[in-house]
This record gives sequence, structure tokens and C-alpha cells, in this order.
Amino acid sequence: MTITDTIESEPMLMNKTANEFEEIVGGITAPQGFRASGVYCGIRKIKKDIALIVSDVPANVAAVFTQNKVVAAPVVVDKELLKRGSGTCSAIVVNSGNANACTGEQGMKDAWAMVSATAAALQLPEEEVLISSTGVIGQYLPMENVVSGIAQLPALLSTEGSNDAAVAIMTTDTYVKEVAVEFEIGGKPLRIGGIAKGSGMIAPNMATMLAFLTTDAYMAQPLLQKTFGILVDRTFNRISVDGDTSTNDMASLLANGMSGAPAIKEGTQEYVRFANALEFVLVKLAKMIVRDGEGATKLVEVIVNGAKTEAEAVRAAQSVANSNLVKTAIHGEDANWGRIICAVGYSGIDFVPENVQLSLNGLPILEKNYGIVIDEVKVKEAFANENITITINLNQGSESATFWTCDLSKEYVHINASYRS
Amino acid sequence: MTITDTIESEPMLMNKTANEFEEIVGGITAPQGFRASGVYCGIRKIKKDIALIVSDVPANVAAVFTQNKVVAAPVVVDKELLKRGSGTCSAIVVNSGNANACTGEQGMKDAWAMVSATAAALQLPEEEVLISSTGVIGQYLPMENVVSGIAQLPALLSTEGSNDAAVAIMTTDTYVKEVAVEFEIGGKPLRIGGIAKGSGMIAPNMATMLAFLTTDAYMAQPLLQKTFGILVDRTFNRISVDGDTSTNDMASLLANGMSGAPAIKEGTQEYVRFANALEFVLVKLAKMIVRDGEGATKLVEVIVNGAKTEAEAVRAAQSVANSNLVKTAIHGEDANWGRIICAVGYSGIDFVPENVQLSLNGLPILEKNYGIVIDEVKVKEAFANENITITINLNQGSESATFWTCDLSKEYVHINASYRS
Repeated sequence: MTITDTIESEPMLMNKTANEFEEIVGGITAPQGFRASGVYCGIRKIKKDIALIVSDVPANVAAVFTQNKVVAAPVVVDKELLKRGSGTCSAIVVNSGNANACTGEQGMKDAWAMVSATAAALQLPEEEVLISSTGVIGQYLPMENVVSGIAQLPALLSTEGSNDAAVAIMTTDTYVKEVAVEFEIGGKPLRIGGIAKGSGMIAPNMATMLAFLTTDAYMAQPLLQKTFGILVDRTFNRISVDGDTSTNDMASLLANGMSGAPAIKEGTQEYVRFANALEFVLVKLAKMIVRDGEGATKLVEVIVNGAKTEAEAVRAAQSVANSNLVKTAIHGEDANWGRIICAVGYSGIDFVPENVQLSLNGLPILEKNYGIVIDEVKVKEAFANENITITINLNQGSESATFWTCDLSKEYVHINASYRS
Repeated sequence: MTITDTIESEPMLMNKTANEFEEIVGGITAPQGFRASGVYCGIRKIKKDIALIVSDVPANVAAVFTQNKVVAAPVVVDKELLKRGSGTCSAIVVNSGNANACTGEQGMKDAWAMVSATAAALQLPEEEVLISSTGVIGQYLPMENVVSGIAQLPALLSTEGSNDAAVAIMTTDTYVKEVAVEFEIGGKPLRIGGIAKGSGMIAPNMATMLAFLTTDAYMAQPLLQKTFGILVDRTFNRISVDGDTSTNDMASLLANGMSGAPAIKEGTQEYVRFANALEFVLVKLAKMIVRDGEGATKLVEVIVNGAKTEAEAVRAAQSVANSNLVKTAIHGEDANWGRIICAVGYSGIDFVPENVQLSLNGLPILEKNYGIVIDEVKVKEAFANENITITINLNQGSESATFWTCDLSKEYVHINASYRS
């Protein structure tokens, strides 16, 4: 059994070790050798709208992209750049306010122009650059603004620039999403940092979310990609705001090795430690995205235990997390548990309804054989909490999965009824 | 090719022939030999809450039920009754206000008690009775009220009782859903009538919807079941309010032959005529349910043309119809077409995004190769309409499908945040 197998078989890892890692300030510029900047270039009405992240040396890169069939131009271009390159990346430029999606040939030209402008400004080969866009679909990028933004960004690069970059990638987000941790491997301090943005169109398979991570650890590119893929699948691919998967999603991890610590190799204690730290950062960012879901007032954790397979646990948890009826009931602080078991019922998994147990924030709601044990007073109190955990035990196996979502509020409708205006 | 094949290959039949059938008053009591009643028995706070539909002679029965794994007691009991019986049914009793779902052994006892009380009150064998419940999940039926209701219903039966029954099955519906048509086959007048209720938890695969249909035509039971199944699949299984599939759904059709017209046989002109009329009634009811979706202000018809297979057309249309982002944009009268093509993109079907054409109420929005041809002024005007039709042409085949949904409003959240209160 490789260590990767160990990770794969421990889906609840982070929930067990959530307090193990020390958080530090600095976000993506906390790890050594990374700088970032953000500036306003006029794509949006107000707010910084273009960001740059740079590694002082070419960093090994791992990246995952949307699984939507409709893929935005920057995603197409990034895949091509990664194919042409040698597994490293030195700079990522990201704009908000316009997704450059469904923009045809013009959109492709614009995306390539972003790449060449960034490469020129930083005197890098194009293959060392990645780009990303988020915002409205179906409108051409205002390239004059974009190019002027790219020209300004290098001079603003700073080892304290993570926050500026995090602000610049936000769309309807209401707060900045930035995390960094420090931990030791064999006496050497290592750091992982990340920034992310939501906050609508968040669904499994990368939805409209962007996340950029950095580390000063060193790991060979193929292992970095494999590890990142497994952990994204267990974190960003288990969150849902509205069930919509977007055209632009991307998460990437740059590992530049500038800590000076030796390469992290598969099958070692160091590898497990690094993977745990990375999962910690990814879970933090994932929860931040969901808690900031459009109109959200509560962070909802759906845990399915006792499943035959992890895939079935994921499917059941996802069905509950995507149910508008469950999400509105939680918004109304109403323990309408029938909607929860009903959502498991149509998830497509095979199970015996009579064996299901349900609890809410640790309070039993339903025992086997539909034993209704709800204490309405206590449950009402529990609902006052901003963090709601729904635990579903299928009692037919030993596999588990966690899915994160938010409640569904009138504010969600308000935000999305006039997004383009 | 049988006539059934003909029906199967013509999914758009009703849209072509929508005005062919003459609507008459009378709902489920319009066909000869049917009576109905509805009364208040105290399950709900106010409003009639229990209904009875009776055929004067045993009628051939077709029925379809929810595909949720969590199945309410009345559905379990009905399946058993249909298995025991000889394909006929004389009486259906339906309560609103309580779904008798997730109620374990007690729920099963209560469901059987509903059957025996109804059979006794009408002096029928139990196998001639079907039952149905809708409302809150996870609470026991107040059987004293239910039994008292069943005792009162027979004396109130009337050939003008359809409306009372239609009112009694409503939950959060804001209007009564009742349809009847009259048409001739070989000079003989035939009638089909129906009532239905929504209006949350409406999704494909029968969601929380109940529909009861009657006809005075005669058709052998196996053909009746087959025909009804095909047409329900094309109507009630193509509507969505919130994507949630309920535990209690049921649609049934009683055919008592009391028109005196000869039996309708497969492979005849008469059969096609009858199937068309039945589909007309089902589409009418399906649209009424969606238009009355919780908080809905618009009826949205999603048509996918140019698909390789009908199944793919259904899948794409369903993905668009279930997208909260599409539904909120329509609520806000915002032609955010990127969300539509994005929803097709994550539907799971294979297609070439560059080949897609989009229109809204007949106004072109998007041509091939992302040719954006939207006339914002005209589209804004079109949006003022209560009926919105989104037409998506995939341009890769000749198959089509229609899916019906509604917009997503703040009122939906309001209704569902405190449904149990």
C-alpha cells in the first residue's frame, strides 16, 4: 500500500486533525519565493480586478480544471500551455468581472494575448505563464484594460501581496479567502498558502471557483499532480452552493522548493505530513467558499456514515447538500428531517430506509425503524448556530463522506436575479 | 410498428395539436359513471383535507408511483392492493396535510386502516380501493380525523364533486388543478378528466405530485397501463419545480367504459386519438403544476432540439430546467444566456458548444460559433411575458424534448423555510 492509498482510504482525515496545523498570516505569499499583486484595471465597475502571482524560480505545477463541456477560453489555453511546458510555472494572472467564456475565436485570441502580455512583462517564456478569468459569461474581455492591468502588476509585486491578489479575484464574494500554514518536516519549516474565490455556481467538479495555492516544499511534478488531484476531489469537489458547475473553474498548486527542504517522496512519513497540511488548507478554503455562498447565513456539513462505499456516501451526501428543500428548511431553522431522508431516497444509492439514523449537531433526530426522537426545543436551540452538521448513518457499511453546503436564502435569489445588471 | 411505437416516436405531439381537443367543465366527474367528494376532517388547520373518487362500476386501473427509495406507506399499500386485485379499482381516497411517510409500522397500520375504512364505507372489497396521502413527512396520521372523514365522504359523492376533491388534495397549491376534455371516436362521445396537486418537491420521476384521472372509455388494463406509463413519462416526468423527488407521488387513471363505446385497441386510429387526448390532459395538468410551483411567477418551457437521441434531449433540457441560476435569472427577467449554455455543459451529454443556437420566446439570442445576436430591448420585452420558452438547438441530430419548470423567487424560500410551522 502506497501512502497515496493511505490518503485515499482516509476521507475524514482533516476532520480528525483539524487543529494540528498552525495557521499563519500571509496567504499565498507566506511560502518563500512567492510574490503577488492586485490592481484595478477597469473590467469591473469598482474594486481591484486583476491579480498576479509569481514564483521567483520556476515552480512545479499541479492544476485541475472544470469538467463542464462548455469550457472558457483561459481554460483551453492553460491546458495547451501545460502540454507545451515542462511541468513548471512561474506566473499566474487572473482577472475578475469577465469570464471570457462562450466568446468563440475572439475569446481565444484575447486569452492568448493575456498570456503573451504577461510573459513579456515578466520576461518569461509563455509556457511559464497560466491565466484565469471569472465573471460574466458571453462578453468579450475589454483587452485595453486587461493589458494595462498586466503592465502595472509586476511593479506592484510584493511578498505581502497575497491579500491584494485575493481581493482582485473576488466576484460576488463578501470576504477575502486566504489561508496559510507552517509545519515542520525533519526540522525544516515548510509553508503552504492559498487564496480562493466563490461564490455562486459552486458545485462539485470545480464549479465557478478559483483557487491558487503555493508551497515552498519540493515535490516532483507527477506526484504533485496526483496528490493535488486526490485532495481536490475530497475538498473542492465536495462543496455545493447551488449545484451549478461553471465553465471557468481552476485550482492550481505551485511548489517551488525554496524552503530548501529535501524533495518529498511518495511512501514516506514526510509525504503524509505534507498531504495532511495541504488537505487542511484545502478544507479551510472550501468551507470559506461555502460559508460565503451567495446569500448564505449558515455553513452546513453533511456527513454520511455507514455506507457500503465511499462513492455511495458521497452521492447521498451530495443529494442532501443540493436539495433546495433541505437548504431552505435549514435557512428557516426548521428540523424538517423528512426532506433529508427524502433526498437520500432519490440520490440513486441502494439502502434500507428503516435502518437510517439522523442527527443534527449531535442531537439525535431519527433512530432506526423511523424512531422519531427529536427534541424540538433542543434542536431549535442548535439551529441558532451558524454551523450546522447533519449526520446520516446508513448502517450498512463502514465508509463515510463529508459534503459542505450552505442554506438557501431570499438573498440568493436577490443576488442572482440581476447578476448582469 | 405498433401505434405505441408511433406515440413513442412523437414526443412533441401535444405541442403540435394543443388546440385539437375541446375542454369541458367537470374535471374527474365529467366522464360518465364517476362521482367525487371532498370534506374537512381536521388533518390540516383549515381547508378540505380528504377526498373520495368513485367509479360506479369497477374501472380498469393504471397507476405509476414515486421512484424514491424512501416510499410512503400508502404507496406500499397501493402496490400490494394492485398485486392482489384483478386490475380494477372502484374508489380512491386521498388526504392532504400529512404524507404518512417515514412513519414505520404505525404508518403501515394507518394506511391499511384507511383502506378498510373506505372499503367498509362503500361496501367494496379492499382490492377495489386505492389510497394516497400528501403533506408533512414523519408525522403519524391523526386516524380519528381520517376515519371520520372517510365516514362522511360517501354521502357527499356527486357527479359535480370533482372540484371539492381537487380542493381537498391541495397542499401549498394556490389554485385548483382540474381539466376535462370531450372528443368523439366513431361518432361516440368520450371524456377524460383529471385533477392534480403540486407544488413543492416537484421533479422528474413523480416528485410530490398527485394526479387522478378518469375516463369513460374502455381499454384492456395492460394496454391502459402501458399507454399511461409512456405518456406520464413524457409529461409529469418532465416537470421540475425544485429538483426534489418526493416519497408519495402517484398518478392513476381509471377507465370504466361507461361511455358505451367499444373497447379501444392497440394499433387502431381510435387508440391514437385516445392517447392524444390523454396526453393533452396530462400536459395541461403538468403545466398547471409547474406554473403553481412554490413562489413561481413564470411558466418556463425548455425545448431542446437537434439532439442525437431523445434521452439526451431530455437530459439537457432537465439540466437547464433544474438550474437555480437559470431560474433566478428568469425571475429577474435577465437574459443571462451564459447560464443556460453552462447548464447544458454540465448535463453530461456530449455536444459541440460552438454549434449551439439559443432563442427566447422565438427571439434569437445566440447563433453558431458563439454569435451573440441578442437584442436586449426586445428580449427585455419578451421577459415581461408570464410564459417563457427557451429553445436550444444542439444541431447534431433530429431528436427533441420539452421540459417544464418555473422561475425561482424569494417567495419559494419564504414558503419552504417554515413549511412545518
